[in-house]
Parts: sequence; structure tokens; C-alpha cells
Amino acid sequence: MVRASGVCVTSVDAMVEGTHFRLGEGLGEPAEIGHRALAGALSDLAAMGARPGEAYVVLGLPHGISEHRALELMRGAAALASRTGTRIAGGDVVAAPVLIVSVTAVGWADEADRLVTRSGARPGDLVGVTGTLGAAAAALAVMEGRAPAAPASTPALERAAAPEPRLREGQALAAHGVHAMIDLSDGLATDAGHLAACSGVQLELRLPDLPLAGGVVEVADALGVEPWRLAAGGGEDYELCFCAPSECRGDVERALRADGSAGVTWIGAVREGEPGIVMLDASGRRVELEGYEHRW
Amino acid sequence: MVRASGVCVTSVDAMVEGTHFRLGEGLGEPAEIGHRALAGALSDLAAMGARPGEAYVVLGLPHGISEHRALELMRGAAALASRTGTRIAGGDVVAAPVLIVSVTAVGWADEADRLVTRSGARPGDLVGVTGTLGAAAAALAVMEGRAPAAPASTPALERAAAPEPRLREGQALAAHGVHAMIDLSDGLATDAGHLAACSGVQLELRLPDLPLAGGVVEVADALGVEPWRLAAGGGEDYELCFCAPSECRGDVERALRADGSAGVTWIGAVREGEPGIVMLDASGRRVELEGYEHRW
Repeated sequence: MVRASGVCVTSVDAMVEGTHFRLGEGLGEPAEIGHRALAGALSDLAAMGARPGEAYVVLGLPHGISEHRALELMRGAAALASRTGTRIAGGDVVAAPVLIVSVTAVGWADEADRLVTRSGARPGDLVGVTGTLGAAAAALAVMEGRAPAAPASTPALERAAAPEPRLREGQALAAHGVHAMIDLSDGLATDAGHLAACSGVQLELRLPDLPLAGGVVEVADALGVEPWRLAAGGGEDYELCFCAPSECRGDVERALRADGSAGVTWIGAVREGEPGIVMLDASGRRVELEGYEHRW
Repeated sequence: MVRASGVCVTSVDAMVEGTHFRLGEGLGEPAEIGHRALAGALSDLAAMGARPGEAYVVLGLPHGISEHRALELMRGAAALASRTGTRIAGGDVVAAPVLIVSVTAVGWADEADRLVTRSGARPGDLVGVTGTLGAAAAALAVMEGRAPAAPASTPALERAAAPEPRLREGQALAAHGVHAMIDLSDGLATDAGHLAACSGVQLELRLPDLPLAGGVVEVADALGVEPWRLAAGGGEDYELCFCAPSECRGDVERALRADGSAGVTWIGAVREGEPGIVMLDASGRRVELEGYEHRW
């Protein structure tokens, strides 16, 4: 029973063994799976600027999984819940042929107009991202053996194992008047494209300005691709991409410079034109990512 | 984005192919699965006397399932949603090795004290149930070939294919001051036991008074068991079992006699004593169900 006021938003995120992870292999430790399932659902709330409230967890447990592993999974989720002020308030446990974790997360705001959607970007806005990009794609390349598991790639692996939903940043950005926001679950190129389509605008992104996570340059070198391909094409970084009026620039930078905050990098601008994204290289030439995402 | 006020309650119910149904076999038509998944989640809201609000649906789709079947499943859920005033407001679709449907349903009430829990039953209360019992157990016996698929069992099969969450009845019972309530998802004996344990009381149930669904007597005859074994031991009837102060008896009967309402049958009384249930036969002798549930 939850005392309600204002507005609530709800996000649902399901992870299935074999589709989203392999149990016991890279990033497939139970605690990591629990963390990532909750992080994915909370990240959607962060992108609206909502306060995290309750989470409800469905566990589908395969025959033979140990109680210890199931509890480890819930401990991974519980640690993130506790740290973000989220209450795991219920759920369901069922028998299933593979491990399944589905999280419903509920967020709250005092008024509907305090929440940010994907559809408010306007020509002239600046495009920003929180934190750094590419860790998840770099980690995937290492885990799949396409890049060596060198010491340099350790930061990317650690980051990918425990992505941080940007809840405080999302609320700060909403409070400072950003026009539109989305979380990067499918990758910058894809998600910025969603935002552009919802807003009916064009997002021009400067690839050399993308903030790279530790280890991304080294892994990209080993793969023989430009680092921005990992940063723009890889999913599950769970940073926020947002469009802010240029007069908010200073406020946004100050707000995201606070202790423990992810920081902000300005990576582009909103233009009129065919809705979608345009990616520019260092010389200002258009670059196409299409078809590259799966070729790192 | 949902405008909120008062209190909300949330119920999560997951159904997995192979655990809860067999796709395409008895009660395994996609539309039936969609209906039953939503009905299970809404039934928990009914048992609290909450107004249905939103539902969020996770679909795990196996390789090769047709779009037609997936849509049929959602149509089954959507028809029940529409009829009960529930809004399917979001969800997630993922690839999975078997068909999975997980529903998160949210219900609302103006004040916390308008909602009914499992823990308020008091000695002297009457025990009532809505509707009729045993249809799901009878249908299961027919589908598994333990009883013949005779015309007499048709009502039970139809009822089991589309159980009705007792939302209006639950709200009416809450408004008329029932002390405790639970929905019958695991069977009367089990669920009344939960209610008794939560309330710290003993529920004395008169087995000959259990209201039997159409076809239950015939199926029980074919199985060679007393009909009350199906009515008290079988799960998924989704009726409500509640404890009401005796002075509310007339109000409750009138409220549940309304057009289209499930009606009420009084089946026992709340006593002081060791928390749990006591089941009495026509001679007032104690009967044990233990171990019989799976022997119909």
C-alpha cells in the first residue's frame, strides 16, 4: 500500500537468460544480473526526472538453481535499491525453464509538468550527455574474445557490470528546465534518434566530443575501429542524453558538477530539418553508423 | 504518467509456459492465457477492495511464435481490461525460450483505511465467499483426462478458461465494512489458511455449504471424490473469501445481489483458537484436506 500524490510513472524491464545474459559467464554473476535488471528500470525513471519510489521484482527460477544464487541476485538488486532510495515492495517467484528477472519500477513527481519527456526538444537547444559512453560495448567485445582482456579494459568491465542509473542527475536536469531527455539503453545513435523522432527535430552530434569511458580507446584500438563507434553504437551505458536551452548551460554544468555527480558533456545541437540524427566527424563531415554497430 | 491521489496497491503475477499452461492445449489458447494473466493480477486488487487502474504487461516470446498468436494473447488481456476499466499502460517485449506473460496491476483507493487486508478477521465474524467454487479443479481433471469431457463439465471448463476477477464485489465488500479478505488463487483451504494466519484466528468452514460451480458435482462423481474436495482444494477460482461482522450480513447480501454480481454464500465463522482452518462435514466432524488436493 503506497500513499500517493502528484503523478507516478512506471517502467518495466525484463531480462531473460540466453537473451540478455548467460548465467555465470561475463556479467552473468547473479548479483550483477539483479543490479542490472533494476538499473535498467530505474534508468527510465531517471530520464523523466522522477524520484524513485517502489520496485516489484518477478523472478523466474530454473530447476536446480541454488537458493544461494537466487538470494545473491536479490542482494544485487537490494544494494542498488538501498543506495538509490528505492523500496523493493513486492513481486512474484515462479518456476521457469531459464532464469528470468522482470522489474517494474515506479517513480514519482509532485506535478506532471516537472517531468521531462522525449518530445520537447527545440531547434537551438544544446545536446548533452551525462557521464561517459562506450563501457558496455567495450566490455562486450572483451567478453566475446574480440578484444584482449588487458588491464586497460578493466574500468570498462567494472562499469558495465554495475551501470549506474542517473537518478539524481535526471532530477537535477528536470529541475533546471531541460526540454527533452532519454536514457541510453540501446546506444546513443538509436536513442538520440528516438528523441529526435518524438520531438520532430534533427540532432546534430559531434562524434569527437563524445565522452569516452575508461578503457574504450584501448579496446577500440584492439578492434581497429574508431572509439566513437563503441560510444555511439553500444547499448546499456544507461547515461542520460538531453536537450537543454542554451541559457541553461551554466546551471546544468553547475548542477552536474556536484559531489558524486556524473558530470555533463555537450555533444551537439538541435536543428530544424528531417527528424533524426546527423553525426559529424572532426572535419564536420557526416558519418553513418548504420551497419557498424555489430561489426566492432 | 498517471495522476495519483489517495493510495495505490500493486500486484504482480507471472505465468510461464510449461509451469502455468501448455500453449495450444486445454486453457492454453493465447487469448485465454492473456485473460488469465491479467485476471490473476486484478484478483489481488479485488481482494483489497481497490479500484483497478493501470496494468503493465511483459511478454516473453519464443522463437517462431506467430505475430497473430502474440496479438491474440494481448487481445484476451485487452478485452478483460476494457470490461473492468483497467488501462494497459505499458510493458516490455523480450525474446525468451518459452512464452511468458507477467502482469503488474495497480489499483487505487481514496484512503488507506478503505482498503481491506488479510489481517483484520475477528472472532464472531461470518466467513463468506463470492460466486462458486471448484470450476478450475474440475476443468483440470477433465483436461488431464482423469474425468470425461461430458456435456455436464462444459460450464466448469468455460468458467476456468475465463475466470472473473471480482473487482466490483471487492469494492462493495470493502465499502460495507468486511474485516479481512483474500482471493482464492491457491484454493480455499490454502488461502483461508493464509487469512487465518495473518489475522491470528481460526476459521471454521462448513464443507457442505460450499457453493459449487456448474459441472463440479458431475466431475467429482466421475473421480469418485466428494465435490467439496474440488471446491476447497483447487486453485484459480479467483473468488473472494472474506470475514464480515455479523451485523453486516444483510448489507453484504444486498450489495452482492446487484445485477451481474457474483452473489455471496456464508460458509463458516471465525473463532478464537490456534490460528488456521477447521473444516467440518455435514455431521460437524472435522475433515482433513491435507494430501487430498492432488488426488482428485
